[in-house]
Amino acid sequence: MNKNDTLNHSLHPPNRILMGPGPSDVPKNILTALSQPTVGHLDPFYLKAMDELQSMLRRVFQTQNELTFAVSGTGSAGMETAVVNLVEPGDSVLICVNGVFGNRMADVATRAGAIVNTITKPWGQVFTTAELKDAIAKYTPKVVGIVMAETSTGASQPIPEIAEAVHNAGGLLIVDAVTSLGGMNVDVDRWGIDVIYSGTQKCLSCPPGLAPISFSPAAVASVEQRKTKVASWYLDVSMIANYWGENRAYHHTAPINMTYALHEALRIILEEGLDNCFTRHTLNHLALKTGLETLGFTYAADPDHQLPMLNAVTIPNAVNDAQMRSALLKQYNIEIGGGLGELKGQVWRIGIMGYSAKQENVLGLLQALEQLFLDQQLIGDLGNACEAANAVYISTASA
Amino acid sequence: MNKNDTLNHSLHPPNRILMGPGPSDVPKNILTALSQPTVGHLDPFYLKAMDELQSMLRRVFQTQNELTFAVSGTGSAGMETAVVNLVEPGDSVLICVNGVFGNRMADVATRAGAIVNTITKPWGQVFTTAELKDAIAKYTPKVVGIVMAETSTGASQPIPEIAEAVHNAGGLLIVDAVTSLGGMNVDVDRWGIDVIYSGTQKCLSCPPGLAPISFSPAAVASVEQRKTKVASWYLDVSMIANYWGENRAYHHTAPINMTYALHEALRIILEEGLDNCFTRHTLNHLALKTGLETLGFTYAADPDHQLPMLNAVTIPNAVNDAQMRSALLKQYNIEIGGGLGELKGQVWRIGIMGYSAKQENVLGLLQALEQLFLDQQLIGDLGNACEAANAVYISTASA
Repeated sequence: MNKNDTLNHSLHPPNRILMGPGPSDVPKNILTALSQPTVGHLDPFYLKAMDELQSMLRRVFQTQNELTFAVSGTGSAGMETAVVNLVEPGDSVLICVNGVFGNRMADVATRAGAIVNTITKPWGQVFTTAELKDAIAKYTPKVVGIVMAETSTGASQPIPEIAEAVHNAGGLLIVDAVTSLGGMNVDVDRWGIDVIYSGTQKCLSCPPGLAPISFSPAAVASVEQRKTKVASWYLDVSMIANYWGENRAYHHTAPINMTYALHEALRIILEEGLDNCFTRHTLNHLALKTGLETLGFTYAADPDHQLPMLNAVTIPNAVNDAQMRSALLKQYNIEIGGGLGELKGQVWRIGIMGYSAKQENVLGLLQALEQLFLDQQLIGDLGNACEAANAVYISTASA
Repeated sequence: MNKNDTLNHSLHPPNRILMGPGPSDVPKNILTALSQPTVGHLDPFYLKAMDELQSMLRRVFQTQNELTFAVSGTGSAGMETAVVNLVEPGDSVLICVNGVFGNRMADVATRAGAIVNTITKPWGQVFTTAELKDAIAKYTPKVVGIVMAETSTGASQPIPEIAEAVHNAGGLLIVDAVTSLGGMNVDVDRWGIDVIYSGTQKCLSCPPGLAPISFSPAAVASVEQRKTKVASWYLDVSMIANYWGENRAYHHTAPINMTYALHEALRIILEEGLDNCFTRHTLNHLALKTGLETLGFTYAADPDHQLPMLNAVTIPNAVNDAQMRSALLKQYNIEIGGGLGELKGQVWRIGIMGYSAKQENVLGLLQALEQLFLDQQLIGDLGNACEAANAVYISTASA
């Protein structure tokens, strides 16, 4: 834009099919909710909407935690909120690193002044309870951080036994559920998670901008016993709780319209039912996997610990990464994600999250890939991948 | 909401007339922009929209600063971004406190590890250059923080001479322009501001959720010379600049739809023209002030330093604060703000910000107040306040 021109056009975004690592497709109802008239952040209407949102969030997190709300930032702000509230300078913190987001959590904890120790696994693998127990015995951490759904690798980390090990040693467990919440079972109270956070733009199918979060009573007690102020004023839950709680004390102006959208997104998920939602993600994952394997893709994550909603698959040698993703976007309006961190250039990250987890998207992507592969003479026949995926849908429907 | 019920209603917010301290009324075009289809945060369409947004933000800030973007949080996140990037533990920081937001900035800087000194003025007054010079000589701060538009008092702080004093002593100046940007002259480069931030929900008339911010080359150099990492990972501009800049390196998922809305909000302001926009705010302020004074209100801020867009007025003794504001909301759908901090219960904060700064709103509020005052026998006649305000519009139109 020339500095002296007035920009005389509004934005008219294309209608993409979002099958990357997030954002996912946003249903029309949620976009409509987003564009409802803005009201004040202390308007009785808005306060009631906040109550409803908290109530629905507790159901989606499967928790009774009073301190359950949406951070006024994206998923990474959720991570930072979890860490900076539990950690004081000098605290021992253990972070499990097997991908980009574990690394990020270690960075966040270091900045908060923690003495950070990490255990690592090759990307795509998950941690065993024994490994956690050893590390806990060695470092006696006040806080352990782990990523349930590593968006960089597609690996799915089991949580319950690890939570038990952390608690047996008197620690608190932070779990990153940015990519998993709403797409697979996340059972906060039964598993014993102390702080869990997510993002709106993955399996909740809401635009990015808020980070659902929940603190257990033990986590709240830990915050209350701090000797130092939380490093971040903006993310200090002791003040934020006074706005989301009964006092309604002004802290910062809430992102009103994003709250409307998240309210609608949660309503839609609960209307479908959590179990139905999880089953839908699993089914579409199986169909997608079958189709992708037909085309020669292999998965980057441990096959026993594969996330349904995030499929990180190794790019076949003959395929040009950037060119093929660009062709998918330009010719088919389909977005998939490239690799991140040490998997950059090696994998694609295909998301079937929330509203994006549907037969039409899975078959559409496979069809597009088949056509592009055929055009480049990477396969000889059209239709095999789609047929294989379709067979999964048919066999499930008749089961 | 009963825990076992599915919430079977979407939100249908009332159409309020927003005349509080923000959010302000949001024009239909901006709500429509907000609800456009979500695309990926690395989509070529989105990257172009970001470029346009930056270019328009520079024009609204009146700056050439390369590092000009929107923080993925509300105005308070903008404040935190400004402070935590410039401040390292042990740095001397001087904060000017004459209201809630100066206090907040001091708190944020303390949490960032700064040695914070403050100078204070009674709420509603502003600082003189001489006062700043004395404090700078005494504390030799690396960073000075000041609020241009104190939303808690309605006071308007002159900036240019203070910026010069700060620079002469080798310091950097942070300016809070949350409430002023888009409603009065904010001339970043000419005035010599090093870091300035704002919010979307005031005179930009966009829903809350983003914080426009701009760093001068000197501020960027200061960030580059840090010896320690920025305390906040989420707000670390050295990484965020790599996403908004040419590298387009993923940092966190941007709030896509809020960016659409801010893009449209800036476009509308530039279409009207900054000077026209400022004149409109001043005119509506004069009309409102005339009407309010007719009803017995007085202003809380120094009359020589009164913000046009935020009118903090002392509540007449006979008026019940909460009851009257509630009646305005329930009977007239008009929201005005109560007092904040030490002015709680003593003042109302009436905002005429952005799209809310129009004759229809000013006269509508005065009319509603007159009727409510008459109902409670606080005045004997209807129409005087509206008439007085209307005369301001008429005399300006004929001038």
